[in-house]
Amino acid sequence: MRIGIIGTGVVGRTLGSKLVSLGHRVTLGSRGQDNENGLAWAQQAGPDGHTGTFTEAAAFGEVVLNATGGTVSLAALRAAGAGQLAGKLLIDVSNPLVFGPDGAVTLDPVNTDSVGEQIQREFPEARVVKALNTLNCELMVDPGRLAGEHNLFIAGNDATAKAETVALLGEFGWPAEWIVDLRDISGARATEMMMPFWLRMTGHFGSAEFNYSFQRGK
Amino acid sequence: MRIGIIGTGVVGRTLGSKLVSLGHRVTLGSRGQDNENGLAWAQQAGPDGHTGTFTEAAAFGEVVLNATGGTVSLAALRAAGAGQLAGKLLIDVSNPLVFGPDGAVTLDPVNTDSVGEQIQREFPEARVVKALNTLNCELMVDPGRLAGEHNLFIAGNDATAKAETVALLGEFGWPAEWIVDLRDISGARATEMMMPFWLRMTGHFGSAEFNYSFQRGK
Repeated sequence: MRIGIIGTGVVGRTLGSKLVSLGHRVTLGSRGQDNENGLAWAQQAGPDGHTGTFTEAAAFGEVVLNATGGTVSLAALRAAGAGQLAGKLLIDVSNPLVFGPDGAVTLDPVNTDSVGEQIQREFPEARVVKALNTLNCELMVDPGRLAGEHNLFIAGNDATAKAETVALLGEFGWPAEWIVDLRDISGARATEMMMPFWLRMTGHFGSAEFNYSFQRGK
Repeated sequence: MRIGIIGTGVVGRTLGSKLVSLGHRVTLGSRGQDNENGLAWAQQAGPDGHTGTFTEAAAFGEVVLNATGGTVSLAALRAAGAGQLAGKLLIDVSNPLVFGPDGAVTLDPVNTDSVGEQIQREFPEARVVKALNTLNCELMVDPGRLAGEHNLFIAGNDATAKAETVALLGEFGWPAEWIVDLRDISGARATEMMMPFWLRMTGHFGSAEFNYSFQRGK
């Protein structure tokens, strides 16, 4: 499959490398054409890894992944262009973290809105699924790093788009029964708002090498 | 120990009954003196269960638990009176849920503040610990209802107050090693902001009979 990834940060590059290793063709998109991260990634990714502008990456992809920071995601996707996203599965991996001068991390948007909802509103013809924004990118592409069952959460308005997302995550190693459907795209609020807790837990564990799981009634 | 509980809702009554069963003396406080929930609870709680005003409950307690809704907690604690809280461990169990006309549940405060922080600022002589606000009240007082290890999260500025909280939770059945210290009281933001996710998960499971757990690296 041809996959366009918006963003050349560590999340985008990690997802891109995994997808290439699975036999997909990937274009990583950045604001300019000469993004160092993107060029370096394409160099080592081999013939199936390319880099380009946001527009080129989105146009290339049959599926598009948003791996930009959540506070700049709308701008990046506008630069990519609505026409390049229409009809496509758009998996939004972002969190809208705002790093304050006092070290506090807050979210924008939050509570009454989310990046996932913003994107779906702005690009109504894209089939947006929020996913993968609750864990470290090393774990996104290799769930077997952790012992036992642990969970991912998806949200979106299009059932087919969610099924396609579950299938792609299955290629990453995620059993379908580990993936919890939080219903419509407003479920993105719920998972984005877990980020302050996740950051505290990385402090507790001294590492991002953990993920959520649940205990149920006996 | 003498324990004052601010709030006569299901959370306050459940905590009160457990504490009485453990041999503590409990006063449940409400705005007025003739609160039906409080009177009915005291009737069945036996000689160690009492009811009274917010002020009477806070004055009675060597430890005070805030089991009011988070959007009215400050008002309830103001009614109780700063003098009744000074120097005491004040365990804040609240979440500031706002139920919108569209069925959406949001938080107020959120993101840059939390009920836990509001209470600590307003009552600087109280030793506030955020705890127990991430799970159903039946589970708060009976962690053995679930299989395996699952976790609680506490936050507060006073290490002694947190140790006292862990000891009290130990009486409820929580092993100390299941209780994660999220550092200072601003950690209350992190756990309060999990509530939208928790609500979605109750929809997924069809029940509140679950709790958070974590998988770590192999």
